[in-house]
Amino acid sequence: MSLPAAFHDIAKRVNNWGRWGDDDEIGTLNLITEETVRGAAAAVRGGLRIPLALPLRQDGVQTGVIPGRVNPLHTMVQINQELFGPGTVATSDDMVTMGLQSATHWDALTHASHSGRLYNGRRADTITPHEGARFSGIDKAPPVVSRGVLLDVARAKGLDRLPGDHAVTPEDLDEAAEFGRLTVRGGDIVLVRTGQMQLFLGGDRHGYGYPSPGLSVRTPEWFHARDVAAVANDTLTFEIFPPEIENLWLPVHALHLVEMGMLQGQNWNLEALSTACAQEQRHTFLLSAMPEPFVGGTGTPVAPVAVL
Amino acid sequence: MSLPAAFHDIAKRVNNWGRWGDDDEIGTLNLITEETVRGAAAAVRGGLRIPLALPLRQDGVQTGVIPGRVNPLHTMVQINQELFGPGTVATSDDMVTMGLQSATHWDALTHASHSGRLYNGRRADTITPHEGARFSGIDKAPPVVSRGVLLDVARAKGLDRLPGDHAVTPEDLDEAAEFGRLTVRGGDIVLVRTGQMQLFLGGDRHGYGYPSPGLSVRTPEWFHARDVAAVANDTLTFEIFPPEIENLWLPVHALHLVEMGMLQGQNWNLEALSTACAQEQRHTFLLSAMPEPFVGGTGTPVAPVAVL
Amino acid sequence: MSLPAAFHDIAKRVNNWGRWGDDDEIGTLNLITEETVRGAAAAVRGGLRIPLALPLRQDGVQTGVIPGRVNPLHTMVQINQELFGPGTVATSDDMVTMGLQSATHWDALTHASHSGRLYNGRRADTITPHEGARFSGIDKAPPVVSRGVLLDVARAKGLDRLPGDHAVTPEDLDEAAEFGRLTVRGGDIVLVRTGQMQLFLGGDRHGYGYPSPGLSVRTPEWFHARDVAAVANDTLTFEIFPPEIENLWLPVHALHLVEMGMLQGQNWNLEALSTACAQEQRHTFLLSAMPEPFVGGTGTPVAPVAVL
Amino acid sequence: MSLPAAFHDIAKRVNNWGRWGDDDEIGTLNLITEETVRGAAAAVRGGLRIPLALPLRQDGVQTGVIPGRVNPLHTMVQINQELFGPGTVATSDDMVTMGLQSATHWDALTHASHSGRLYNGRRADTITPHEGARFSGIDKAPPVVSRGVLLDVARAKGLDRLPGDHAVTPEDLDEAAEFGRLTVRGGDIVLVRTGQMQLFLGGDRHGYGYPSPGLSVRTPEWFHARDVAAVANDTLTFEIFPPEIENLWLPVHALHLVEMGMLQGQNWNLEALSTACAQEQRHTFLLSAMPEPFVGGTGTPVAPVAVL
Repeated sequence: MSLPAAFHDIAKRVNNWGRWGDDDEIGTLNLITEETVRGAAAAVRGGLRIPLALPLRQDGVQTGVIPGRVNPLHTMVQINQELFGPGTVATSDDMVTMGLQSATHWDALTHASHSGRLYNGRRADTITPHEGARFSGIDKAPPVVSRGVLLDVARAKGLDRLPGDHAVTPEDLDEAAEFGRLTVRGGDIVLVRTGQMQLFLGGDRHGYGYPSPGLSVRTPEWFHARDVAAVANDTLTFEIFPPEIENLWLPVHALHLVEMGMLQGQNWNLEALSTACAQEQRHTFLLSAMPEPFVGGTGTPVAPVAVL
Repeated sequence: MSLPAAFHDIAKRVNNWGRWGDDDEIGTLNLITEETVRGAAAAVRGGLRIPLALPLRQDGVQTGVIPGRVNPLHTMVQINQELFGPGTVATSDDMVTMGLQSATHWDALTHASHSGRLYNGRRADTITPHEGARFSGIDKAPPVVSRGVLLDVARAKGLDRLPGDHAVTPEDLDEAAEFGRLTVRGGDIVLVRTGQMQLFLGGDRHGYGYPSPGLSVRTPEWFHARDVAAVANDTLTFEIFPPEIENLWLPVHALHLVEMGMLQGQNWNLEALSTACAQEQRHTFLLSAMPEPFVGGTGTPVAPVAVL
Repeated sequence: MSLPAAFHDIAKRVNNWGRWGDDDEIGTLNLITEETVRGAAAAVRGGLRIPLALPLRQDGVQTGVIPGRVNPLHTMVQINQELFGPGTVATSDDMVTMGLQSATHWDALTHASHSGRLYNGRRADTITPHEGARFSGIDKAPPVVSRGVLLDVARAKGLDRLPGDHAVTPEDLDEAAEFGRLTVRGGDIVLVRTGQMQLFLGGDRHGYGYPSPGLSVRTPEWFHARDVAAVANDTLTFEIFPPEIENLWLPVHALHLVEMGMLQGQNWNLEALSTACAQEQRHTFLLSAMPEPFVGGTGTPVAPVAVL
Repeated sequence: MSLPAAFHDIAKRVNNWGRWGDDDEIGTLNLITEETVRGAAAAVRGGLRIPLALPLRQDGVQTGVIPGRVNPLHTMVQINQELFGPGTVATSDDMVTMGLQSATHWDALTHASHSGRLYNGRRADTITPHEGARFSGIDKAPPVVSRGVLLDVARAKGLDRLPGDHAVTPEDLDEAAEFGRLTVRGGDIVLVRTGQMQLFLGGDRHGYGYPSPGLSVRTPEWFHARDVAAVANDTLTFEIFPPEIENLWLPVHALHLVEMGMLQGQNWNLEALSTACAQEQRHTFLLSAMPEPFVGGTGTPVAPVAVL
């Protein structure tokens, strides 16, 4: 079995291999320039800071359906330990075991492969248990600070949240941009809100995961045309799930990560941001969403913050 | 045994318990206001982004001397796994086990206690294996984005790095502020550079840890007087180690975390920032240093970024 | 709230504190003597070896209901890694993260406490995050090899498995001993079969855990009278769950572990053993059930084997 | 580069591929028959039980030299937690993260491969991060209970321990068998004592690991000729290290695990057993050394016990 022609047609149109040289490992993060960053700083008006990460806890978004992707398990290794003798200052230390993709996270470019290839044509088997991802590991990413824009698809449609079978289309993105009175610029990081996170926040972990609204296979071309640097949303699967085209699983992953070399983020909590942007009537802000530099990592937890 | 009078004298002068109410769990992070954040954005000039985190890897800064504090151990749980059948898009997933204080990190206010008490007078035994820190866990911290200032103590003295027995004094901080032509303001996050990180980067893990230059027990009053929001530096122990006063171990931890309720950060790599600030002749910038919101965590890895 | 008089009455009758000295940390394992072991060897007839552990895997018996008790998560850290250069002999290494009580396991004596006390009157707060259990940790246990006896309560009653609300009584144990034509002797390790494991093996993890047949609060006296060295069974909770007496949770744990100082084992797979014993018409055997010597551990995975 | 002719010559002579069928996954463990087990029980005389595992702790035998092989890290997830309300019976639970080959352990047959092949000709790439070892994982091993024999090479030579450059030869094994007045039989598990463990027990972790006495590349033929079921010793590397033949690394691993399909064990503490056998003037016993059944595991911690 191989991927269908429909996939390869899009792939050809959005492919960025070689665009920043044969040795490039960071893809569309190249699009964040110093000018972009100055624009991001200029987007700060009131000084409001809105965190976008879910709390890291054992009853997080993972249900066990994705093998090996474990919610954060936090344990104490020391509690008020008087390391230097009785009556001295005491310290507490803790430890965590977690899947790098288990919570609010970035997928590294190496999180997906197809046809034996990673972004920029690297062989998929350059990912090994010993080293992790030799190329395009998350540790290679430059600082992810740029202008952020919220495309609030649900609110633009007057909905609390999109239904589970709604594929977010380019038309939806246009509508949300218009709603937010903004123009997406090169180097922007786009946050797409579906409202699906409300299910998780309301206690329905399984409903949150499946079925899920998410990006349509038609959207990578939209992001490509606008030179977007990265995209994140408020779902577990990122793309519409189950998929639009029968037996074509995870096409948006393959297009963004492998073909375009564009970071994508999942499980971002955009609820408070949605409220704030609506109140402020501004949908652009400085976004800092720094990867933790796991050497060879194919993903990373992230604690993003929007500064309006 | 109990802590000496010298400690309690300082403690009284810097104590912030009750300052933001009896229920406060975030201490000096209260000092970061929207105005502070606007000032931080205004500190961005060229748009240069400088990451301050060490790579997360098994051969990190921990040597085993601090029990239970394990360097990040990264393993792959899936590599190019075609979850939906042969020939489909493949994914790779990874997992980490790590001490929350093992790499570039923030200490939560609950990382230290003395005399059975935590910040704001909470009982130390409210930290449990089951819940972690019930109060002032790292998940309670608001977004840590503010104006950052680099006090480059080593460079101000014309040194590559301070010697291992150098306690950084208030006078050193004044000198570095003058060198950077800056005034520390309320809500600022202060980064103190000793240059000690060069030892680790040069391969000497043991020498990096001990002996180590670091903050003097006299500096908390300096930070307190200026309403600093948080302090981080480029050492393992943060404060001068071994300590200035015999048998008074970790006094700066106790003053910052317990008495003042001020976040402190360790193992920050300030080398590239030092070079950039010297070149730009500016030592102020927007700093984003978001904690990962581990529920009940007494610390967190952090991937800080300075934007100049 | 405190434990009811009904509990304390039994506790007095089965209490072994001081029986083997004030410093004793191993309780009824003292009852396994060299003579017992010779008897165990003499119980081997045909030479059949029957393993009693469940496979260790991520989809094990834990469902997430017991906080922090995680099923074994197995990852590869190296796969066919040619550590000494291309073409050399390659090795594969793996790692596990698991709850010590998550699978087929022994509870150490320190797994339970009540009224602030552990076995032999030790203070409960001698268990710390730093050291684990200072006294009676699982590493203190002598080799657990003795004569094993199967009390096949379900088969003795002509049932596949006991119903979920069946408390196994002393009368049931007598009936099963008679069915097995055996007399329990001092130093024996008793395996009590309910058949509940069939639910887990049949795919019903939740039904396996709750409701569950298990030992009645009346059985500790039966074991005490016979100087049994340890008891294990084929359930998650060991004792009848929910409990027989309203609001008296885990009384058997408290009686066995705290009062008697007797190891107890859970999640043992006794299905194949039941069949073999019925076929051989013998219900006694050599049992080796060695704890892994985790220093300070309050439990341990175990891979028991019955040799008939 | 490929393995030298010297290796392949021996390999041909000891190869067991196909001996127990093309589907066999357990190799020489086939040699333990019911008769063998009866013989093992008959070897029990006095009833002395001697444990052979090192304590599992963070300061175990691993020094960090072998990447990813982490000493056991034990943490408490609950301490005296009154899960059912104040005043109820409390429980403590713990968790471990550890390398399966980090302490006293068995190598599964899949721990080594060469020339792209595993035991019985299976492809090496059947080991994956997702499944671990699809064939010959440690979970496939039948119960490892058999007659054990101690070949006390050091004591037979009148030495406390063999020097670091001593390769244990077939002649050494003969000498030790004669010293123990025993004949190795088919299905026996052979324990070879070098005394090297004294270095670790004496606090010299690095000296324990390197240089190390161990089995010569000439010994696999000796074990093969005697139909030995498994071999373990008291060193980190099992075989003489550095190796006898320049650039031929880990040949004994390849011969035992890949060619013969024979389990091998490392880091076994044979000191107390050596003393006991010398006192009892018997070097044969019942040995129980049950693998923990990690599904797909290429190794396992083991807590062996000798019963004399």
